[in-house]
Amino acid sequence: MILRLTDISELAHKLKGCRNAVILTHAHPDGDTLGAGFGLCYYLRSVGIKANVLNSEPLPAKFSFLYKDYAPQKFDPESVISVDVAAKELLGDGLSDYADKIDLCIDHHFSNRMSAGDSYVDGDSCAVCLIIYELLKTLGADFTPQIANCLYTGIATDTGCFMFENTSPAAHRAAAALREAGAEAAYINREMFQVKSRGRIFAEQRAIGEMKFARDGKIALITITNSLIDSCCIDRADLDGFAGIPLTVEGVEIGITLKQQPEGVFKASVRTVSADASAIAQRFGGGGHIRAAGCTLNDNREESERMITEAAAEFV
Amino acid sequence: MILRLTDISELAHKLKGCRNAVILTHAHPDGDTLGAGFGLCYYLRSVGIKANVLNSEPLPAKFSFLYKDYAPQKFDPESVISVDVAAKELLGDGLSDYADKIDLCIDHHFSNRMSAGDSYVDGDSCAVCLIIYELLKTLGADFTPQIANCLYTGIATDTGCFMFENTSPAAHRAAAALREAGAEAAYINREMFQVKSRGRIFAEQRAIGEMKFARDGKIALITITNSLIDSCCIDRADLDGFAGIPLTVEGVEIGITLKQQPEGVFKASVRTVSADASAIAQRFGGGGHIRAAGCTLNDNREESERMITEAAAEFV
Repeated sequence: MILRLTDISELAHKLKGCRNAVILTHAHPDGDTLGAGFGLCYYLRSVGIKANVLNSEPLPAKFSFLYKDYAPQKFDPESVISVDVAAKELLGDGLSDYADKIDLCIDHHFSNRMSAGDSYVDGDSCAVCLIIYELLKTLGADFTPQIANCLYTGIATDTGCFMFENTSPAAHRAAAALREAGAEAAYINREMFQVKSRGRIFAEQRAIGEMKFARDGKIALITITNSLIDSCCIDRADLDGFAGIPLTVEGVEIGITLKQQPEGVFKASVRTVSADASAIAQRFGGGGHIRAAGCTLNDNREESERMITEAAAEFV
Repeated sequence: MILRLTDISELAHKLKGCRNAVILTHAHPDGDTLGAGFGLCYYLRSVGIKANVLNSEPLPAKFSFLYKDYAPQKFDPESVISVDVAAKELLGDGLSDYADKIDLCIDHHFSNRMSAGDSYVDGDSCAVCLIIYELLKTLGADFTPQIANCLYTGIATDTGCFMFENTSPAAHRAAAALREAGAEAAYINREMFQVKSRGRIFAEQRAIGEMKFARDGKIALITITNSLIDSCCIDRADLDGFAGIPLTVEGVEIGITLKQQPEGVFKASVRTVSADASAIAQRFGGGGHIRAAGCTLNDNREESERMITEAAAEFV
């Protein structure tokens, strides 16, 4: 049975009881898990509690501003805390030893299914960093610029810079307070949202150049083949966010992105303005959410494009 | 001599004295001038003061959600108010009859040089809609969803969806309150920031495909020729924002965008991360701000590209 803390003051109480803490972040880390991890770590250290942040892999350079003044501390771990980790397999191989030893799980995924001593899961919160912000406020924390940078990063990245539907009034109010506390929001926004690698820019450019339309422009499809990935010298980790491109074209109601996998098959991401994306993906054994879903097709580009377009056409 | 109101309560007092009002917005209208105009208009109407919003031209369809329930009212105008208009020539030909009859000028441009009965200019405010928000709050207004949509639109568009350096804590707090008042932020964000015309997408795609780099990738240049504009069937009004593209490439410190004018000459927009853009533009008789400036070159593409790149190279 998973015990759930229901009030942020219970979470605050629990945290006060820690003598030291190891904070676990999820594999393929993003701004929210790292922002929450380092933000919490810097706070704990500021009140004399030793703390470290762990990840399964070396951290992406993109987020180096979050950990540039960080050095691991030595201690015998007593508390293990996870942030933004919805299930233990998401910790990655490097942290699997901790998977069954988590004392406190802090998360914002409705689907959270971690086993932990205590869990605080707020599925209505747009970012774990927003939960950490509320937690530190409850604890009467001094929000240093370093902590403010961490928490701003997670809130901004998980809301697409306050553009996505999940953006809450609370997210805006936290952003206001974190800017006042010294968050370098302009720098963070540029690094997180504006700058792209050269390979990424040209991969987008070529994929858009070959964009296909169907049903009077209501369906748009782009395909990222392995040869495109190779010729643009783009890392697979740098392929996030392509799925949003077809839906940026005026008039498009269903956007489809096919991404070839190393072994050759095409995975489809379906994004919709109002149609049921998950129903389209289910035709091919996939699934997901109502506006964002995915499925796997086969290793023939033309056939994969045709099949998914025909399925989508029934939902226009 | 321009009388300046210095306090929002003076502005509120002035507004209360209006028996009816014509609200002027600037030519080539954007989200801020229209959001402020219609937001103020709907408020005045809600408290029994007749009001109309005027623009020099027919309004862009992109902003139709701001005026879909709007119909002009009949009255003999007593007060003329301008919003987001920094100088009278920016009213456009269609409103030039009003240029010397402005009773109240509300603006956020430091450079404001309007002659008006009263002026309230807050150059530190990131949007006129933020000033109108504070004004209506001072007046104890009921923020209807319609008013909230208008004011949210201006704050979001003038801050690049809270991404630009000008975004203030006050902008975030206003956005929070306006969302709570019913602003359809997700819809507005999609329309304002995510959706692009097909011509626009392909014009970007082709310009990026021909992007040129210099000085180890620290300078990037794109060129939009008249033939590109024609072949993509893109309206010149839809060419805003191209100037930001070169600077989105990782490692680029100076981004240059050449845009051919109908008569053939190339205008350059210079954007920089840290170099003095206006110094580069001044080499060719142009000018602007430290991070964003412009100048006019000649009608030879290769020569224009070479000249501006060489000038920029001195600033890397």
